[in-house]
Amino acid sequence: MDFAAQVVERLDLLGKISDEPDRLTRLFAGQGMRRANELVGSWMEQAGMTVGRDAIGNLIGYYPGTGQKKLLMGSHLDTVRDAGRFDGALGVLLAIACVARWRETDRSLPFSIKVIAFADEEGVRYQSAYLGSRAVAGCFEARDLERADADGIKMADAIRAFGGDPDRLESYHLKADDLLGYVEAHIEQGPVLDSANHAVGLVTAIAGQTRARIDFHGRAGHAGTVPMTLRRDALCAAAEFIALVEQCALGNPGLVATVGQIAVEPNAANVIPGAAWLSLDLRHQEDAQRREARRLIRHSLELIQRKRLVKCEWESVQETSSVPCSPELSTLLRQAVLKHQPEILAMPSGAGHDAAVMARITPVAMLFVRCRDGISHHPDESVRPDDIGVALEVLFDFVSLLAKSHEQI
Amino acid sequence: MDFAAQVVERLDLLGKISDEPDRLTRLFAGQGMRRANELVGSWMEQAGMTVGRDAIGNLIGYYPGTGQKKLLMGSHLDTVRDAGRFDGALGVLLAIACVARWRETDRSLPFSIKVIAFADEEGVRYQSAYLGSRAVAGCFEARDLERADADGIKMADAIRAFGGDPDRLESYHLKADDLLGYVEAHIEQGPVLDSANHAVGLVTAIAGQTRARIDFHGRAGHAGTVPMTLRRDALCAAAEFIALVEQCALGNPGLVATVGQIAVEPNAANVIPGAAWLSLDLRHQEDAQRREARRLIRHSLELIQRKRLVKCEWESVQETSSVPCSPELSTLLRQAVLKHQPEILAMPSGAGHDAAVMARITPVAMLFVRCRDGISHHPDESVRPDDIGVALEVLFDFVSLLAKSHEQI
Repeated sequence: MDFAAQVVERLDLLGKISDEPDRLTRLFAGQGMRRANELVGSWMEQAGMTVGRDAIGNLIGYYPGTGQKKLLMGSHLDTVRDAGRFDGALGVLLAIACVARWRETDRSLPFSIKVIAFADEEGVRYQSAYLGSRAVAGCFEARDLERADADGIKMADAIRAFGGDPDRLESYHLKADDLLGYVEAHIEQGPVLDSANHAVGLVTAIAGQTRARIDFHGRAGHAGTVPMTLRRDALCAAAEFIALVEQCALGNPGLVATVGQIAVEPNAANVIPGAAWLSLDLRHQEDAQRREARRLIRHSLELIQRKRLVKCEWESVQETSSVPCSPELSTLLRQAVLKHQPEILAMPSGAGHDAAVMARITPVAMLFVRCRDGISHHPDESVRPDDIGVALEVLFDFVSLLAKSHEQI
Repeated sequence: MDFAAQVVERLDLLGKISDEPDRLTRLFAGQGMRRANELVGSWMEQAGMTVGRDAIGNLIGYYPGTGQKKLLMGSHLDTVRDAGRFDGALGVLLAIACVARWRETDRSLPFSIKVIAFADEEGVRYQSAYLGSRAVAGCFEARDLERADADGIKMADAIRAFGGDPDRLESYHLKADDLLGYVEAHIEQGPVLDSANHAVGLVTAIAGQTRARIDFHGRAGHAGTVPMTLRRDALCAAAEFIALVEQCALGNPGLVATVGQIAVEPNAANVIPGAAWLSLDLRHQEDAQRREARRLIRHSLELIQRKRLVKCEWESVQETSSVPCSPELSTLLRQAVLKHQPEILAMPSGAGHDAAVMARITPVAMLFVRCRDGISHHPDESVRPDDIGVALEVLFDFVSLLAKSHEQI
């Protein structure tokens, strides 16, 4: 059986299951998710798993082994609006294929495998991400149940309508002591593997993140009548800051820094901007390095303020620590990758993943799969069938290596 | 008679005449303009002038002299929305006071004076500036009569309702051969005189202007997953450009360069900007220098494009040549200023004025009057009474000097 080809085929089928007629949008506890769970559940059963759903709506396939411990594998089945077919779904289908592939060997496993297809990672419907993994990992915020979606439907009611039970989320918490770890395969969502021509890569950590809003208060004035030396141009200050942020990141390997939003006032062609604000997003796998970059950038802001007499204000929006992947699991995953690639790139994940939440209760490892041009969250998302084959073999070899190490203990 | 105090008092009275109840807004051919014309016309009569209106609605006061030639003086009576009391009105009232001041001397003038209170300079109602002076100077665009205001009222109909005659604009063209020149006093609308602590200053030219829109086409991407070295960030390109524009202007005395508008796409905190656009406004009194700066800036854009693989597109929006003031009239105006100030600043006007249009038919000169902090087009616009006194004496002395030079010929 060519399980990789089957994954490719199933990604096509799953990609047609949507809440919307002409594009792929599969939101938490929606009708698309219901049909997706039915289909993916049937594939779990075909792979020899018993299938169930937990109280929040995660689909869970269980493949028994001889020992008490469980290895968790999976990813999410929800999508952004107008999504591609691979983000999330690939990790779920590879996990199922990995189980099917193992079952074909007729060998017993010294641990059981739970494949979890999380019901929400993107957080589109309730503007709150990782609902699925947070419920499993015991860090679900009960007050989130009161959130309403765009149609005014409360999350608790949506969970009930989906067949779940918002009052029983706790009874489905996984116990850390039972777990060997959580392994997730996911498209890279970036261009590194594609640029290096690698099919797969190893994730070292889910990067920590600093988000801030920076305001520049200068002085508006007539574009024709205020000499350059008498100006306090808020946009010139912001532009100098953007350049410094870029320089800081270019000089700091592993740091990514992005100004994604900007606005000026009064935003008229013949008026010197009196005010400007912008967003800043800093990520690094080492929290210490991210904090040092943040310090340098804030310091540069003070220099700009003094030099230009433009008041600069930093408002912290979010600080998220880095989540390192397990060295032990990653060592095995690296060995598995090197059976199929001469070289391996180890890189942080700049995007968040369920693994970052699962790390609260168990060691995690992540395998990145190359996606064309790094495009994701877009219908043009694309993964080569050959790479899916490599990823499947890597996961299978990882499970084999883990089984071997487990038997030796 | 303290004519300067009278001007201050009249600015207050005139500043209360508005199309709107709670703020000063006096648009072309509106009810505020009708009442303003009545009041200002009565002041012209008090100064010994005969008063009339031309076909577009400009208010014209005539003070006869012994010769055939006419000296034109004036400014505009329309305002922007939520305006200050001085922009335009000050020049009209100073011209009237100058005539009244001359009349008090009981001396005959070797030329007549026409004080023109232009009906439209700001162009708020019909989005087309200088309607008043263009009608007088013979460069009114007949197709503008078809323009409609926000209420759908066509300009031709507005002119008729105001008592004018859109079909007879040409009969009111002034003949260049009859004219000695046009002299306009106006608030500086910039901070140069205030910074230098000068009451008035001499305008050398109305600066030429280059306006352009610049588009940056990079590549959007995930703020967390695309390494700095693989980015084609449109906003980083725009920021580098803004810094270069500022540097270019700082290194080029007399040049002012402004990026007043900016926008990015998709404008999300976690997405690398794939596209950006901004406005550029360049002004200099020397066209050659403005063109050279434009060339350098466009060249820097090419370098940014090559370095960053971000496509940069320059779209020309407007090119307006500089309008130099008359050396002869300016020499007299300078002499008049130096009777009242130990020093004189000569500067271009970065803002447009009726004088720029009037220069098509006659030599022009302009006197700038200090305004507090350079603020204009705002209710906080402010001019010191003492400076109004200086400006009036300067205009009076200018007329005296011109009369003297005229008698000598």
